[in-house]
Amino acid sequence: MDVDQKDQHTCRIGEELTSQYRKKLPGVVDRILDSCRQDSCISHVDYDPIPSTESVVGIIDKLREVVFPGYFSKEKLDPVNLSFVLGRTVTMLFELLSQQISNSIRHDCMRYSQECSDCGERGFEAAMALLDYLPEIRDVMAADVQAAYDGDPAAKSHDEIIFSYPGLYAIFVNRIAHKLHEMGVPLMPRTMTEYAHGLTGIDIHPGATIGGRFVIDHGTGVVIGETTTIGENVRIYQGVTLGALSLPKNAGEALRNKKRHPTIEDDVIIYSGATILGGDTVIGKGSVIGGNVWLTQSVPPGTRVIMEPPTLTYR
Amino acid sequence: MDVDQKDQHTCRIGEELTSQYRKKLPGVVDRILDSCRQDSCISHVDYDPIPSTESVVGIIDKLREVVFPGYFSKEKLDPVNLSFVLGRTVTMLFELLSQQISNSIRHDCMRYSQECSDCGERGFEAAMALLDYLPEIRDVMAADVQAAYDGDPAAKSHDEIIFSYPGLYAIFVNRIAHKLHEMGVPLMPRTMTEYAHGLTGIDIHPGATIGGRFVIDHGTGVVIGETTTIGENVRIYQGVTLGALSLPKNAGEALRNKKRHPTIEDDVIIYSGATILGGDTVIGKGSVIGGNVWLTQSVPPGTRVIMEPPTLTYR
Amino acid sequence: MDVDQKDQHTCRIGEELTSQYRKKLPGVVDRILDSCRQDSCISHVDYDPIPSTESVVGIIDKLREVVFPGYFSKEKLDPVNLSFVLGRTVTMLFELLSQQISNSIRHDCMRYSQECSDCGERGFEAAMALLDYLPEIRDVMAADVQAAYDGDPAAKSHDEIIFSYPGLYAIFVNRIAHKLHEMGVPLMPRTMTEYAHGLTGIDIHPGATIGGRFVIDHGTGVVIGETTTIGENVRIYQGVTLGALSLPKNAGEALRNKKRHPTIEDDVIIYSGATILGGDTVIGKGSVIGGNVWLTQSVPPGTRVIMEPPTLTYR
Repeated sequence: MDVDQKDQHTCRIGEELTSQYRKKLPGVVDRILDSCRQDSCISHVDYDPIPSTESVVGIIDKLREVVFPGYFSKEKLDPVNLSFVLGRTVTMLFELLSQQISNSIRHDCMRYSQECSDCGERGFEAAMALLDYLPEIRDVMAADVQAAYDGDPAAKSHDEIIFSYPGLYAIFVNRIAHKLHEMGVPLMPRTMTEYAHGLTGIDIHPGATIGGRFVIDHGTGVVIGETTTIGENVRIYQGVTLGALSLPKNAGEALRNKKRHPTIEDDVIIYSGATILGGDTVIGKGSVIGGNVWLTQSVPPGTRVIMEPPTLTYR
Repeated sequence: MDVDQKDQHTCRIGEELTSQYRKKLPGVVDRILDSCRQDSCISHVDYDPIPSTESVVGIIDKLREVVFPGYFSKEKLDPVNLSFVLGRTVTMLFELLSQQISNSIRHDCMRYSQECSDCGERGFEAAMALLDYLPEIRDVMAADVQAAYDGDPAAKSHDEIIFSYPGLYAIFVNRIAHKLHEMGVPLMPRTMTEYAHGLTGIDIHPGATIGGRFVIDHGTGVVIGETTTIGENVRIYQGVTLGALSLPKNAGEALRNKKRHPTIEDDVIIYSGATILGGDTVIGKGSVIGGNVWLTQSVPPGTRVIMEPPTLTYR
Repeated sequence: MDVDQKDQHTCRIGEELTSQYRKKLPGVVDRILDSCRQDSCISHVDYDPIPSTESVVGIIDKLREVVFPGYFSKEKLDPVNLSFVLGRTVTMLFELLSQQISNSIRHDCMRYSQECSDCGERGFEAAMALLDYLPEIRDVMAADVQAAYDGDPAAKSHDEIIFSYPGLYAIFVNRIAHKLHEMGVPLMPRTMTEYAHGLTGIDIHPGATIGGRFVIDHGTGVVIGETTTIGENVRIYQGVTLGALSLPKNAGEALRNKKRHPTIEDDVIIYSGATILGGDTVIGKGSVIGGNVWLTQSVPPGTRVIMEPPTLTYR
């Protein structure tokens, strides 16, 4: 492009005007710093960095390579290199996990000035416990994949489900995060599930307890609350909420750590847009909850709940 | 930071304890490997790598640069460099497409031990057919953009729609993926649409057939099933499901490749949260389906369906 | 892998066939170029590049480091390095903002052939105004965090909310984008909010005006329209739509820049899946709107609106 165009493109203005504006910058910085000296300022100054999302994502990816060998690794795996590749990945995972877990624990105990002597060992312990748990996760995930295939006519193959189904991904991340949550690791589990939430639109709190052969189809808009319990062989669709009953304002403190979300027993199907609320609500074994149903009470095993279709007006 | 802080930060623990934990790693690896020798293990060992999501995303980005010239390329395009830039991009696309398509076809025929002699040529063929189809895609996308502008008072310009509307992006990816799906390419089409699903919250199966001037506004939570057919000039809003009727458990096999999702004729508007289910359900030309309507039966052309507002209690 | 496997893997085919296909490429390119010479072609040839999403994302990240010091920076911040780190980031922000804003303004005035002499100065002006506004944004975001904590029993700490809650992120991006929108900056504000929409499933138009202590819980599927006004201390849940009433087809032009979306007064709670439509609809102070409520009319202050639960059939 010729000079004129270049000038136009850069929208450049006189040196004088430029320096006029730049002169104001120190004042702006000062005002920003001052604003951070008020009580209203929420800051994280003088604390060690929070485990970065990047490092947590790296951990999730490596765990996935170990649980689904050959699906997500760049190189081709064969019976010969398998043990070497997995061995390397598991060793790397131990380093990454123990460090990030230690930092998470340390961050919390510094932040809330508790005793913090053993964060190093607790990091090793939790990392090892999670790795020990991987064979179990692999078995349950294999059952999840089979269940997804059994119930979805659009599924072309197991490979397609493992490779591209967001529901399976969200469940995988929840099974990892839930284990860390059980071991009392702070911050990291929620970072993991919120990352999966961002990718899939499926929001499962790390506290939720979920049985095998669990399927989420499509999944966008699904919300599964902290104290939810889900049995074996349960299938849910997009937009399903398993949540808490409406709270009095500022109920945060009062209800922390109480059972606030429903219990779903084995072999239940919940269709799209259904909402099931309350810590005392139990959906009995083998029940089917229809689309858009709004339920705040328990139903006995084998119940089929459907919404009387609202009257439609045709013109 | 001084040494103490550093020690604290790294949460480091004695060499002895460290090696104590590290000694356990080989055992953990063995257990993981054993768990993969059981039937329950779903693995991808001894098969060629599945087309990576990264490579598929790279293909989508380049296709978008060709279909919307000048919008997504780093450099400024002008009538002089246009043919060179497009020519280069199209040549690169041919290489990338033919390779990824070949690998996808090859992966499936190896995986399901079918005859696999012609995967190379089929890759070339499909890649060429997709490139040949781009002028047509450009025309239909131009109509999609115009339709989005016509119906959305918040749209400031065509540029804004092309540059930032997730609905248009999801439709673009579907039009590409649907073409590959029609040509029988495995895995890749679903990888493309699930990537768009992750970005937009709009889940369109590559099998869905969609006419011109199609608009999805906002879009989060939209689900359009595999055997859906959509006519010309249709407009849908966030949270709309075009899905299958509830299935008997394990209906996967029985219903595979059957028409299970609705048919939407020309000039239909479907407002947010509406759910339309069933392979025999036909929404007649020019109909308007109101918000949150739940419909499992056909309506004749020109029907306006609205939900009788549920009774509200005011306190 | 041995040679045979390699051959298989690459799916390679004879040179002759390869060149046969490659010979067709120039023709394909020509057809693509021709298709772009028709009126139907929407192109961006001969205009300066649109501000890239990458650059806009970089700006959002840096702004977040300044508004939440120490949370998202790689290095540890302490009272000593704080002023240097913030100072550096703010200076970089000034450069990035002024350039991207200038280009956005310039792009629009070139595109719609308006007078474009002052795009450089307007870029400086708007960048400086946004930086000046950051202390205010920090105060209001601190109130948002506190409100999120007060109302959410699952929230473990302020850190967890700032670090991982998508609702807070979407609100942060909206507060930045809304300021730029008020200053008449084109394209960039919508690019920012659509990026946040992609990450969070929360679609807030930059035009929406939102008060302090605003909370969005879970958030997937939330839609807040261009002319919405939200007061202080409002809390909404996933799947809530604050939208426009159904439009006559092609109402785009007629309704552009009219108030089409509702007004929510202070201290209102809106539960999941509720839909509130219309520019004349006002939800009075302290009202509570129940889950799935569909509302197209105003309610007086202190009203509690709940949907009569639809009749359920138990079998």
